[in-house]
Amino acid sequence: MKRYRELSPSLRTIMTPGPVEVDPRVLRAMSLPILGQFDPEFTDIMNDTMDMIRALFQTDNRWAYPIDGTSRSGIEAVLTSLIEPGDRVLVPIYGRFGHLLVEIAQRCGAQVSTLEQEWGQVFARGQVAEAILRERPDLVAIVHGETSTGCLQPLEEIGKACRASDALLVVDAVATVGGTRIAADEWMLDAVIGGTQKCLSIPAGMAPITYNERAEAKLLRRKRIERGLRDPKQEADSGGRPIQSNYFDLSQLQDYWSPARLNHHTEATSMLYALREGLRFVLEEGLEPRFARHLEHEAALVAGLRAMGLTLFGDPDCKMPMVTCVNIPDQVDGESVRSMLLHEFGIEIASSFGSLKGRIWRIGTMGFSCNKKNVLHLLGALDAALLRHGVSIPTGAAVQAALDVYDSKVDAQG
Amino acid sequence: MKRYRELSPSLRTIMTPGPVEVDPRVLRAMSLPILGQFDPEFTDIMNDTMDMIRALFQTDNRWAYPIDGTSRSGIEAVLTSLIEPGDRVLVPIYGRFGHLLVEIAQRCGAQVSTLEQEWGQVFARGQVAEAILRERPDLVAIVHGETSTGCLQPLEEIGKACRASDALLVVDAVATVGGTRIAADEWMLDAVIGGTQKCLSIPAGMAPITYNERAEAKLLRRKRIERGLRDPKQEADSGGRPIQSNYFDLSQLQDYWSPARLNHHTEATSMLYALREGLRFVLEEGLEPRFARHLEHEAALVAGLRAMGLTLFGDPDCKMPMVTCVNIPDQVDGESVRSMLLHEFGIEIASSFGSLKGRIWRIGTMGFSCNKKNVLHLLGALDAALLRHGVSIPTGAAVQAALDVYDSKVDAQG
Repeated sequence: MKRYRELSPSLRTIMTPGPVEVDPRVLRAMSLPILGQFDPEFTDIMNDTMDMIRALFQTDNRWAYPIDGTSRSGIEAVLTSLIEPGDRVLVPIYGRFGHLLVEIAQRCGAQVSTLEQEWGQVFARGQVAEAILRERPDLVAIVHGETSTGCLQPLEEIGKACRASDALLVVDAVATVGGTRIAADEWMLDAVIGGTQKCLSIPAGMAPITYNERAEAKLLRRKRIERGLRDPKQEADSGGRPIQSNYFDLSQLQDYWSPARLNHHTEATSMLYALREGLRFVLEEGLEPRFARHLEHEAALVAGLRAMGLTLFGDPDCKMPMVTCVNIPDQVDGESVRSMLLHEFGIEIASSFGSLKGRIWRIGTMGFSCNKKNVLHLLGALDAALLRHGVSIPTGAAVQAALDVYDSKVDAQG
Repeated sequence: MKRYRELSPSLRTIMTPGPVEVDPRVLRAMSLPILGQFDPEFTDIMNDTMDMIRALFQTDNRWAYPIDGTSRSGIEAVLTSLIEPGDRVLVPIYGRFGHLLVEIAQRCGAQVSTLEQEWGQVFARGQVAEAILRERPDLVAIVHGETSTGCLQPLEEIGKACRASDALLVVDAVATVGGTRIAADEWMLDAVIGGTQKCLSIPAGMAPITYNERAEAKLLRRKRIERGLRDPKQEADSGGRPIQSNYFDLSQLQDYWSPARLNHHTEATSMLYALREGLRFVLEEGLEPRFARHLEHEAALVAGLRAMGLTLFGDPDCKMPMVTCVNIPDQVDGESVRSMLLHEFGIEIASSFGSLKGRIWRIGTMGFSCNKKNVLHLLGALDAALLRHGVSIPTGAAVQAALDVYDSKVDAQG
């Protein structure tokens, strides 16, 4: 029998668009002893978490709870529960994760129509609303922030257009939740999915979601009590076509998260501890101060990168505060620089996908990783790594420029 | 803004059929700082974990990795990937979780036929094999250990029958893995799903699975590279009907777990830490000694319960070592006793489902919870609780009987 060593991961500075570093207080919460799933203390933790998810998404929705799986499990749970085979679904795509929404919707049996925007941009005013009028979809699914391109799509107008044409609007806010404003009720988002391992800085493994009564009405038309829990005589169905997944069946999951506590899966105890504590720290910091913090460190990072002579990828008017995409200078092997950052400096940044692979680096300033120490460490390390790769840059300028941004912030406050 | 208190769960003695107590060393592993998902240190952890899952299931299968979700996510991933709409699926049912297999298979579009055994028993020699000959299913799905009834189904004969008729055999070993022998290769199991929160004593949130080349061949006929990762020109499909889930698509997941590391979800870092460390401790204890430990504490528990005058539910010939079902004495309110155990003694035991609800208690002796301290504490507490509920029992006999079992074990070894 092979002997395995005790787990002992290196300490990393993680400046990717996720997963990012986790607050040690959240890590510590996961080391607490577990409770049984129907222990009243545990169901209190479930209820606390629901309250905090509502606050996070700025919603009064009754339903706000996590799906037990990584971020895309939340997306699939919402889409597979809300899309009936044959439904018309519109997906406006402006990066890789728009394609994922198409892939999932097609696997749910939707008739999908798409609208594509060039990578590095988002949809202009009116574009999506016009497509909604043209396509008359039952459901529109769109990404709020595309980590593949670093672009952020405004949603208010799309929310109004969906409501006007009675389409459900599903928003993938995996990358943005906790880092920039998401007002589910005000923006008329019918369902929103957040990610844990990005701006919330909780390990991957849960996906907080919320949905309103319009979405719930669709679920309830498709509801089946689980075989083995229902009365054998009570086979009558609720009319709609059954949801094709049991694990992702929101009509069953909401019974588990309701006072009825109808048994479904065994809730992922330690992950729920992490989510509960992580959300507590997010709300204690305050959403607005947290969003401002993301903007501040983004400004310092961008000033540093520009001072180094680097240029940013993508339309600056729609830049996500928590992801900065940098054009890799000509003649530089981007992977070699990334590897040097990781192995010499202990810093991880990301490459990208598809046509952007090898063309841009993606730097995250998300949640717990979004701090002055990390930004300055990264800029100094990138400065040194580029020099080591023979790139001629004004050495030392990047860190000074970032410090200037931080100083001006203090002056402005002082 | 409401203030939430710091998370501070009570210490519980958890004697349910899962989730159960977690080894503090596993809890501690979850508090380690996280690594990025493509960090070479992290992919080493992924590979270690695959090796250990192979050892756990006693298999040489290439594919052995966790699904990121709770146990039933593993079941659904296997079934949804292996069942094409219209496939003939046979499910022998002898408890609640057999019904779950039917529910999931139906949602995958299978034509399901069932074979039902009375709760408290399993299928006799020849029964399932005969049904396989009659029904000629493409796939047979069966539960190895039914926590709802405490019964364990022998699998060797079913494995042979499936192989002979070229059906795939999928086994739900959620409750048994790590507590009793599962020999995937020897028993000809084509796919097996384990649970973490039971005999492995790792928090819920991951489901280790393994499958062989026969299962893989079916997957590969249905494979699609994810839209957004594949070359746009490369739309050609592989023949079979696409898998209806993206999150649970094993043909994509195995690429993520292969050296290709084709991006799918973001692996659940801290849960993988827990799984890796938990499996390391299981294998360090040794599978055979671990199974023997489960038998030893079961024997002490059963002796204690009998000495108290209680009777067990179910056919003793097929009793699971890690779950003991007890008939609730007449005139006793089972829920009141459970509540007293929890609130006075800090011990959790379980009730059951369906027709057994209110008729039996289910006591787990699983993994880390399966130890002398817990068994003696439970017997003493149950003794006191029954007395408090006016049940006439030979007070003190239970603990003495259990001690006798432990002493005889020591004598036998000495």
